[in-house]
Amino acid sequence: MATSSILQFTPFASSVDAAFWQELANKKLNVLKLSEASQPVYAYYATGHSQQTHPPFPDTANTTSSTTTPTTTTIMPTRICVPAQGLDTNDDTRPPFTFRVNGTLLNTNTLEDFKKLDKNQLFQQHTVKIWEAIQNEDALDHPNILSDFLLLTFADLKKYKFYYWFAFPALMPQEPWLQIKPMDSIGNVFSSMEMTALANAYQAADRPPSFLLRRKKPNTVLFGQLRDWDEFFTNEQDEFWVGFADPSHSETNPGWPLRNLLALLHEKHGIRKLNIMCYREMPGKVNLIDASKLLVAELPPTCHYSKPPKSVGWERNAQAKLAPRMADLGPLMDPIRLADTAVDLNLKLMRWRVMPDLDLDKVKHTKCLLLGAGTLGCYVARCLLGWGVRHITFVDNGRVSFSNPVRQPLYTFQDCIQGGKPKAEAAAQSLLEIQPTVNAKGYDISIPMPGHVALSSDEQLLKDIEQLTALIQSHDVIYLLTDSRESRWFPTLLATLSNKLVINAALGFDTYLVMRHGARHGSLGCYFCNDIVAPADSLTDRTLDQQCTVTRPGLAAIAGALGVELMVSVLQHADGMEAAASDSDCVLGRVPHQVRGFLGQFHNMLIVGQSYANCTGCSEKVIEAYQQDPLQFIKKILHDPEHLEQVSGIAQMKAESEALLDQDWEEDDF
Amino acid sequence: MATSSILQFTPFASSVDAAFWQELANKKLNVLKLSEASQPVYAYYATGHSQQTHPPFPDTANTTSSTTTPTTTTIMPTRICVPAQGLDTNDDTRPPFTFRVNGTLLNTNTLEDFKKLDKNQLFQQHTVKIWEAIQNEDALDHPNILSDFLLLTFADLKKYKFYYWFAFPALMPQEPWLQIKPMDSIGNVFSSMEMTALANAYQAADRPPSFLLRRKKPNTVLFGQLRDWDEFFTNEQDEFWVGFADPSHSETNPGWPLRNLLALLHEKHGIRKLNIMCYREMPGKVNLIDASKLLVAELPPTCHYSKPPKSVGWERNAQAKLAPRMADLGPLMDPIRLADTAVDLNLKLMRWRVMPDLDLDKVKHTKCLLLGAGTLGCYVARCLLGWGVRHITFVDNGRVSFSNPVRQPLYTFQDCIQGGKPKAEAAAQSLLEIQPTVNAKGYDISIPMPGHVALSSDEQLLKDIEQLTALIQSHDVIYLLTDSRESRWFPTLLATLSNKLVINAALGFDTYLVMRHGARHGSLGCYFCNDIVAPADSLTDRTLDQQCTVTRPGLAAIAGALGVELMVSVLQHADGMEAAASDSDCVLGRVPHQVRGFLGQFHNMLIVGQSYANCTGCSEKVIEAYQQDPLQFIKKILHDPEHLEQVSGIAQMKAESEALLDQDWEEDDF
Repeated sequence: MATSSILQFTPFASSVDAAFWQELANKKLNVLKLSEASQPVYAYYATGHSQQTHPPFPDTANTTSSTTTPTTTTIMPTRICVPAQGLDTNDDTRPPFTFRVNGTLLNTNTLEDFKKLDKNQLFQQHTVKIWEAIQNEDALDHPNILSDFLLLTFADLKKYKFYYWFAFPALMPQEPWLQIKPMDSIGNVFSSMEMTALANAYQAADRPPSFLLRRKKPNTVLFGQLRDWDEFFTNEQDEFWVGFADPSHSETNPGWPLRNLLALLHEKHGIRKLNIMCYREMPGKVNLIDASKLLVAELPPTCHYSKPPKSVGWERNAQAKLAPRMADLGPLMDPIRLADTAVDLNLKLMRWRVMPDLDLDKVKHTKCLLLGAGTLGCYVARCLLGWGVRHITFVDNGRVSFSNPVRQPLYTFQDCIQGGKPKAEAAAQSLLEIQPTVNAKGYDISIPMPGHVALSSDEQLLKDIEQLTALIQSHDVIYLLTDSRESRWFPTLLATLSNKLVINAALGFDTYLVMRHGARHGSLGCYFCNDIVAPADSLTDRTLDQQCTVTRPGLAAIAGALGVELMVSVLQHADGMEAAASDSDCVLGRVPHQVRGFLGQFHNMLIVGQSYANCTGCSEKVIEAYQQDPLQFIKKILHDPEHLEQVSGIAQMKAESEALLDQDWEEDDF
Repeated sequence: MATSSILQFTPFASSVDAAFWQELANKKLNVLKLSEASQPVYAYYATGHSQQTHPPFPDTANTTSSTTTPTTTTIMPTRICVPAQGLDTNDDTRPPFTFRVNGTLLNTNTLEDFKKLDKNQLFQQHTVKIWEAIQNEDALDHPNILSDFLLLTFADLKKYKFYYWFAFPALMPQEPWLQIKPMDSIGNVFSSMEMTALANAYQAADRPPSFLLRRKKPNTVLFGQLRDWDEFFTNEQDEFWVGFADPSHSETNPGWPLRNLLALLHEKHGIRKLNIMCYREMPGKVNLIDASKLLVAELPPTCHYSKPPKSVGWERNAQAKLAPRMADLGPLMDPIRLADTAVDLNLKLMRWRVMPDLDLDKVKHTKCLLLGAGTLGCYVARCLLGWGVRHITFVDNGRVSFSNPVRQPLYTFQDCIQGGKPKAEAAAQSLLEIQPTVNAKGYDISIPMPGHVALSSDEQLLKDIEQLTALIQSHDVIYLLTDSRESRWFPTLLATLSNKLVINAALGFDTYLVMRHGARHGSLGCYFCNDIVAPADSLTDRTLDQQCTVTRPGLAAIAGALGVELMVSVLQHADGMEAAASDSDCVLGRVPHQVRGFLGQFHNMLIVGQSYANCTGCSEKVIEAYQQDPLQFIKKILHDPEHLEQVSGIAQMKAESEALLDQDWEEDDF
């Protein structure tokens, strides 16, 4: 009898596609959230072929550099790969000539939880699962159950680090299996005709992970499944083999899947000595199986498998220690995409616990037009970025001046020198520097203002009107953030015409107004609905303190943020911009009409203002007059703001109430 | 008789020191504010000297390129200079050998006002003033009254553009004075001995702007003042001259001051024909008066000075038009200084109208320490810049991550790549990019936290303690802006020890707390005064949504701004950090103790919390225990946060109330 040695097995080396971690991150964020329930996962392996110079299948971007364990001397590791789609059990897009194995993924919420997991217990549970599949013979029909694995993970989504630990439980007898003699190459035993017959039979049987082989001399091979054992091994003249798809590349050792196959054969058929065929094929070349190996394994006498079952199989890490691995995706990822994902991450976290019904996509896909890129415009834009909005457009016709950067948080000192950059453009550029994936643009447009006679030509005025109209039509929410009353008038008219949500913010010295305009034909008013005087030139003759809109510096940050939060609340409301102003909450809470704040009192109050049929800003009469001849109407209003009072009907209303007053007077005289 | 021609005068060309405009800007901002009251101003001129190659006195940085008027052919303009100190009537720091003239400055609030000024009326008023000084003989004793000027200005402090228009009213007779023959050089008439005598006499008489000269042959010159006229011109054998310090460099024309001198001589002495000496000296070389000129002037017969007086004298601009000049200081100024000034400008405007009693310097010179450079830290820093604070220090031990820039408005995408910059340092750098003159620093320090066992050595821990202590001592206001309760504990202790104002801001998902800690030994509480549990580790085992402090994005902007506004309010209160929380307003309004905000309701409320003698953060017992052995005490608390409950007396209080409860229970059983 030849010298026996302990039969050793090449362990699996896990190889996880970077995209799998991305998928896990997505699932954690969007589906699992705080759940730590176990998830199905799948992996695959190919058979080994030690002559191979190229990798056995397309080398996906794996994040772990596979290492060999101290017990083997092979060059290529015995890879088991988790594909990008590994979490999708309906998917089976692994490469051809590979073998699927299923696993169980346990993802913890914290690194502490990951460390504290009772790994022995989990491992034992998994071992029992395999053991039971042997005892109840499920494994006979589905031999890949024998390779079921366990994957423990913690996904640090902030840092894009993924901690993980694979276990491939392998059942152990009380003493190890012995190898009667060194592994032999198949070519030394089988004729090439037999090898071709075997390869064809294997293909025809749809490449089972394990199989039976009966060699009937000369040159006949019969092929069977594990389930056929009793009928298959009858003629004692023939040679018998149990074959398995062997992932090992080693010249001396079979791969890990053999271990539980041996346990099954011993448990179900009392096998103590066995010819084993380690089936190794060249993918795509079915006849090329000459890397396959043969070996004879023997279990020492009186030795049995432990009951309850015992097993080994935790994967070692890159330092060959029994400890978790860590995939750091941060450096691999495109930083711009990483930044893009990171922004959504923080927002999605809101849905984990606090606010599961929050519709973040609705906010994210809202296109916002900011009229004014000053203190309010800058703070509003920043808050929109914070909410994940990706489409932000500025309109402003000013330049960045030296006093701006400390109050307008999109500009720096560099934007001020040499006369100052155009504000709208500089603001858009600044957004791109904060968040490269944002769609930010700036337009240098003069908003036509009642009482400000246009210095430009009719052509230019018409161009401004058309450009503003197009911008308002192509955005979802219009922010009025300019520094005068009259500059809000024309955008109010256009936004009403297009029935767009308008968020309006205006500052006093220590007071602010933040409001949403009501929907067209709705009951809530616009900024002008309370006024009985048409907007007119309030800028030309202002002293410096009036020009600079002197305000307490904290005011713009507060009003800007409230404006955005108000917009988000409206978007979350089932009725959107038609939402009533009271007794009608969205998932985030109230959706007020107007918030008026008084910083001197650290106080604010909610106000509801009704829409007004004679409003100079949003009434149908004004809109009609505008639509009849936009250019001529605007020209008229620029020269003669009071004409608005005629058109809207305010003038008549005033005349009537004065007449009424006179009448009263006469009656008094009487 | 020689041919006569019309006597023409070289007009003044104004030359204003750039620093004068700066001073005007300062005075407008800090003193005049909205006032348009007229201001005294002074200027000076030197005498001309056409052989001169160098400028007559140090060439200060003048902003107007002087131009010649069409009526003269001289190369050098007849400069009248307004020095930096021109607004300070007590000052007289003009160069030696110059003549002071006084003027009236009228600065308008708006460019419109400037344009609308009734310039004819102002000019006429000024003319009358000079006329009256002649009639009442004031001008005899103070001949420089004859050169009184008018200066109209508008200072555009935002753009550093100064619009101005000088008027040098010169009284006109009904027909012009005639010049009997071309100007003669003094050397052609006077002997060099006479010239020396004249120069000496002029010096001895303290260089009057006009004087009398009597030449008594041979070689004697007598020197007198205007007031001496009647006694001086007695001997008809002598030659008589009226001299004046002539700023003209022209070989053919005398300077402007002669015009009103002629008016005076005609009005007071009926003079119709006159020998005139245009005194021109080489500064510093008293004998060098050979550039002086002589001329004979004659008023046509029956011609008189108009009554009411008529005059000319508006300065022409660089295009030789009768229109204002404009000094654009923007391009001349150091942009960094310009930015620095611009920031204060906006703030000072608050004091013009809205809030005259606001003490901006107190805010500006407050040194702020920001513990935490995350969402709150960034918004707080920006708002501090807006208030003009120039000393801002950050403490943070984190790095900028990809999700930060959209929520933390001091970081950009570039700060995140390659692992992320250290936050404190990046935040300080960002402030410098916004405002180059700010004193911003960042420190990467780990704040010792109860329950977080220090991983560092005792040496490192002691260093952290000492560094934090030094930072808190060297700042005036301490902001607590970290993301956990326990990280606020040690700074609370240290700030109480140093009795520094603490501003504390903390965020929930849609709620915030902004508060000031009470003064040491005062009645208002600190962040911990309401708690009966010592702060402990709340971070280690948090899930991702807890780590990221999931908040509505608008919250930090609001809470950060409120924190700064609260600080400013406290600083403006007469009692400072000892200000009571209610019924005690500062110039800005209320000075609350705590502001609690509920964004879901768009609502906030003001709360007052009393200080607590057993507080784990600010009680004297805790401070004493710390002071006995800082390092050992902190080490103990890091390991065993509950020890704080022992030290503070909370534990005893709890035990007592439980005992009381048991007692109640027993009594119930009874």
